[in-house]
Amino acid sequence: MYSFKNDYTEGAHPNILNALIESNFEQAEGYGEDGYTQKAVELLKQRIGRNDIDIHLLSGGTQTNLIAISAFLRPHEAVISANTGHILVHETGSVEATGHKIISIEESDGKLNYLHIKAVLEAHTDEHMVKPKLVYISNPTEIGTIYQREELEQISRCCKENNLILFMDGARLGSALCSEENSLELSDLGKLVDAFYIGGTKNGALLGEALVICCDSLKTDFRFHMKQKGALLAKGRLLGIQFLELFRDDLYFDLARHANKMAGLLRDEISKAGFRFLVNSPSNQLFPILPNRLITELQKNYAFYIWSELDSDHSAVRLVTSWATKEEAVLAFIEEMKMYN
Amino acid sequence: MYSFKNDYTEGAHPNILNALIESNFEQAEGYGEDGYTQKAVELLKQRIGRNDIDIHLLSGGTQTNLIAISAFLRPHEAVISANTGHILVHETGSVEATGHKIISIEESDGKLNYLHIKAVLEAHTDEHMVKPKLVYISNPTEIGTIYQREELEQISRCCKENNLILFMDGARLGSALCSEENSLELSDLGKLVDAFYIGGTKNGALLGEALVICCDSLKTDFRFHMKQKGALLAKGRLLGIQFLELFRDDLYFDLARHANKMAGLLRDEISKAGFRFLVNSPSNQLFPILPNRLITELQKNYAFYIWSELDSDHSAVRLVTSWATKEEAVLAFIEEMKMYN
Amino acid sequence: MYSFKNDYTEGAHPNILNALIESNFEQAEGYGEDGYTQKAVELLKQRIGRNDIDIHLLSGGTQTNLIAISAFLRPHEAVISANTGHILVHETGSVEATGHKIISIEESDGKLNYLHIKAVLEAHTDEHMVKPKLVYISNPTEIGTIYQREELEQISRCCKENNLILFMDGARLGSALCSEENSLELSDLGKLVDAFYIGGTKNGALLGEALVICCDSLKTDFRFHMKQKGALLAKGRLLGIQFLELFRDDLYFDLARHANKMAGLLRDEISKAGFRFLVNSPSNQLFPILPNRLITELQKNYAFYIWSELDSDHSAVRLVTSWATKEEAVLAFIEEMKMYN
Amino acid sequence: MYSFKNDYTEGAHPNILNALIESNFEQAEGYGEDGYTQKAVELLKQRIGRNDIDIHLLSGGTQTNLIAISAFLRPHEAVISANTGHILVHETGSVEATGHKIISIEESDGKLNYLHIKAVLEAHTDEHMVKPKLVYISNPTEIGTIYQREELEQISRCCKENNLILFMDGARLGSALCSEENSLELSDLGKLVDAFYIGGTKNGALLGEALVICCDSLKTDFRFHMKQKGALLAKGRLLGIQFLELFRDDLYFDLARHANKMAGLLRDEISKAGFRFLVNSPSNQLFPILPNRLITELQKNYAFYIWSELDSDHSAVRLVTSWATKEEAVLAFIEEMKMYN
Repeated sequence: MYSFKNDYTEGAHPNILNALIESNFEQAEGYGEDGYTQKAVELLKQRIGRNDIDIHLLSGGTQTNLIAISAFLRPHEAVISANTGHILVHETGSVEATGHKIISIEESDGKLNYLHIKAVLEAHTDEHMVKPKLVYISNPTEIGTIYQREELEQISRCCKENNLILFMDGARLGSALCSEENSLELSDLGKLVDAFYIGGTKNGALLGEALVICCDSLKTDFRFHMKQKGALLAKGRLLGIQFLELFRDDLYFDLARHANKMAGLLRDEISKAGFRFLVNSPSNQLFPILPNRLITELQKNYAFYIWSELDSDHSAVRLVTSWATKEEAVLAFIEEMKMYN
Repeated sequence: MYSFKNDYTEGAHPNILNALIESNFEQAEGYGEDGYTQKAVELLKQRIGRNDIDIHLLSGGTQTNLIAISAFLRPHEAVISANTGHILVHETGSVEATGHKIISIEESDGKLNYLHIKAVLEAHTDEHMVKPKLVYISNPTEIGTIYQREELEQISRCCKENNLILFMDGARLGSALCSEENSLELSDLGKLVDAFYIGGTKNGALLGEALVICCDSLKTDFRFHMKQKGALLAKGRLLGIQFLELFRDDLYFDLARHANKMAGLLRDEISKAGFRFLVNSPSNQLFPILPNRLITELQKNYAFYIWSELDSDHSAVRLVTSWATKEEAVLAFIEEMKMYN
Repeated sequence: MYSFKNDYTEGAHPNILNALIESNFEQAEGYGEDGYTQKAVELLKQRIGRNDIDIHLLSGGTQTNLIAISAFLRPHEAVISANTGHILVHETGSVEATGHKIISIEESDGKLNYLHIKAVLEAHTDEHMVKPKLVYISNPTEIGTIYQREELEQISRCCKENNLILFMDGARLGSALCSEENSLELSDLGKLVDAFYIGGTKNGALLGEALVICCDSLKTDFRFHMKQKGALLAKGRLLGIQFLELFRDDLYFDLARHANKMAGLLRDEISKAGFRFLVNSPSNQLFPILPNRLITELQKNYAFYIWSELDSDHSAVRLVTSWATKEEAVLAFIEEMKMYN
Repeated sequence: MYSFKNDYTEGAHPNILNALIESNFEQAEGYGEDGYTQKAVELLKQRIGRNDIDIHLLSGGTQTNLIAISAFLRPHEAVISANTGHILVHETGSVEATGHKIISIEESDGKLNYLHIKAVLEAHTDEHMVKPKLVYISNPTEIGTIYQREELEQISRCCKENNLILFMDGARLGSALCSEENSLELSDLGKLVDAFYIGGTKNGALLGEALVICCDSLKTDFRFHMKQKGALLAKGRLLGIQFLELFRDDLYFDLARHANKMAGLLRDEISKAGFRFLVNSPSNQLFPILPNRLITELQKNYAFYIWSELDSDHSAVRLVTSWATKEEAVLAFIEEMKMYN
């Protein structure tokens, strides 16, 4: 049984494990004040191309989302999110648990645009309603689509004009930035969004997300919020060492490119076999629509999620590739798909 | 410079790193539903001697405290804690941030007793005050003292009689249970407290605390709370593998014994040199009272915290040993202490 | 200028003011433990036909909703509400501010049905999502529609079968129960819902909502929650005296019938004049669709809200009547409407 | 039985009830946007002597405290309060329920001073602890003592120098400002504190506290917080009318002076009878130490609280007078006290 269920099925890239072993008996300061973390932060600042940003290393996506959002907002302020947004559906109400409403936007491709935002602002008129204040987007989105530079520039402009905070969930940011359809650089994000994070967990780390705060007014006292929510690891070096390895020699992007390449293989062959997709997703998640009969056969040797049932005979499934996906597994999957088709 | 600042200065025990490497490319389920975590949980149940308990693996002490306490309490219910309690002072108001007041008890040795609890209950009479509901203790306490079986039995009985939840913070539980003065077994905890955790971060793990929920009514839906607070790691195997290593062959206790032995060496020699201690702490934290002049000399080669200034010439310092503390470093420290005394 | 903007434009029914004057210099216990409140509670229990219920008097609808819902739910549990629900849109995220997500249901007539609830339950499968636990309905709904007995019985059955709490917002309950289309009694509510409230503010009181808790497990410690959220009035008599007056001789229903009668007058004449309504609302709120030209004329002498713009020439407006609405004002409004039509 | 239990035992000053009757059938805007509230706010600004302040009318002390404090603070910021502070003990953890820790200061006379504040600041050093940000004082204090101008100036200066918010609970502010020992004016408060409130409930209103926000940065969006916490009354006129009456012709101060005069009568005669007081309280609360035997006799005809037991034969009791306290009741109480002494 080979799994295409997600991109956190294996452990970590060997470079990371080696670095953990090499550094293991060095004594380091706790809570992220160690030298590894400092170096990782410096390296990330270089890659983003700005020195006047704050970077914090956290353990996971939900944790990063809830701490950033609750630190950035006052109690009456709300979040705007696509209705497929991870924070809206798959984080057990973690943002609401910190006191903030999420305003849900109906969309078809996982993406928000500036017109969505304007419509929300127009609908929220007075103190009997929450005050929309933070725009949450993820790149790639929950369904694997990615933002183009122009789209992000429009959203960014709309946010600036309306005094909104623009926050990008980058749990799979590597895959988006390395997509063949991508038009954004890491350095663009430093200019266009107020805060974003670079996901490590889904791209080769044991755990770890690097939160980048670009907007000055959002930086103050951020470590208090991390500690209060249980996110300051005593052995913060664990995160520092990992990001140091991921961004030394741009391993992070190599890993993402591999994931995308494996997804590309699947995408091409599934297309050639005559199947369509639920959505055009140029990143490491694919949503092909397959006959249920074929799905049943494939499930004998492969693990993946049924995403949605489309009619009595067809379903969309989700296939996810990662830095660790083996090309032979992909090829074998393709063979089986062809064989049973 | 050698550090006695804390017990999370080094990485992890080599067995753990080896296990991570060996398992690295196996595909495992996410979010703690992997086989390693299941095995670790089974092993812990054996060691505790009960099958009817729930065990969850989390990343750190503050995280575990805040999730357990907020999951266990209704909004108007409050916590009783010693005024030195970690949750009261050193967790950035994380419990209050989930909505719960902590009632602080003045004490001299870090420990609560059943009379403290009774006094709180008598002082809280109606709905204009919070309702005391959970008793928070830690073993060892914040200042290294430990609970004796009889003391814990009295507290446990008092809690049962008054329908209170008894919760034990075990961030350094290994050191307490392996102390020469200890009279408690892991299996006693399973009977006497409603929930407790077995700290891994401070006893050989990269990160990890095993929360044990003994009381049936506290078990329901606990994973929802973990997810909501950002504590379900995508690669939950990271925690499972570590606890499996720590409790396979009782490595956990060997590590704690080493830490205690190193503390014992320091304790004996500091005593022999004629110095007193702020408190009698039979675990891996010591609080000797030293002349400031001597402290200044020692600080040239050793890192440790000044705990409190006692008079213009003397201060109490905190020395912490761990599974990784090297005996030669301890001996060298003792030599320097004698030399400058 | 005469206002049809809402049903809280005037003060209180004169009986209430007289009762305040008569009782003014009697000394009474504070915080709702006075004799008036006790008598009001007894009287309400009689009207509802159950003695085994708890009744608490609060100041307003948002306050009652947020305290009841936050007292009833654990942190990971969520509310199901129609997408027009008052708590979802018009209470500044007050429920989310207590930590709970509201799951929004798309509907067309303001009402939830049991199929909506089942669909939510099916979509919420594990701990990565909130746990739906409380169904929020209001009667009449936000757009003036009312629940029929059979509809409520279906919802009630669905909630019981799925261990959900059924909560009814009754800010305008009088108008619903006195509607010509109504098939529910106050005593039915005591059997079919777990908690509901009887709105006083919008039916003749200065302020005041009577929360009725029918389900035993929801009763515990409720006054703690009221105090914690700032809802225990020092002079609780103010609420007791008002509900005593409202339910002595069933004044409450007389007042609601008057509001409905005034709405009926408007409804009939607007229909006769050839205008349609956004929704068939048999209570004290009407949503006629009028030409913008006519609206502009009417606004010269009458205050009311524009509810929604339907096309470039037509809008739906909201007309609200109350216990204090004067028949001559209604007739004059009708005259003007006819004149400018 | 005559009650000296508190100052909210009777209804409202007759002027208020008359004003409610006179205005009853006028139609007014809802939620505090009515003309009465606007006039009351203007009048209060005049009395305070500043136009650049925001004033909001709320229903009670706990509500005002919790909304102001939670609106003013970010999640990691904490409150400093005397250990007798009302928010710390008697409000069911309402501040903690909004997420904020209260740091308790041991004192003997109910008052904070600037040295207390400095000590707290020195003890809170990093992000592992909460960040002290708001100083909560009440005038008079929980035990009836009052702040002198110089004391308040010192605290105010300390807060400004350390970027702290100074908030004064004025639930009984009238009694403090009208005390014979008082050296503060309402206009001083407008200069020395960042926000305070003028309590109506305990000085002649049915309910109502006027929150005054002096500091610009605390004003933004305050009504959102009021709505979110259920504090915007639909019939906001109820509060506006009352404060208009209380401050028209300075009735508020006349009422407070009466309460103080009645307390003065009691104080003098209790002193003359040879009894001491727990604390020197120059406002409308007295804490005489009486023989238990005498207390038992007095309790036959008078209601009051036992405050604390001092030895087996003596207790301190609390006697509270108000705007409505009858002189003949005070004299009769004094007679009985003398008779049984």
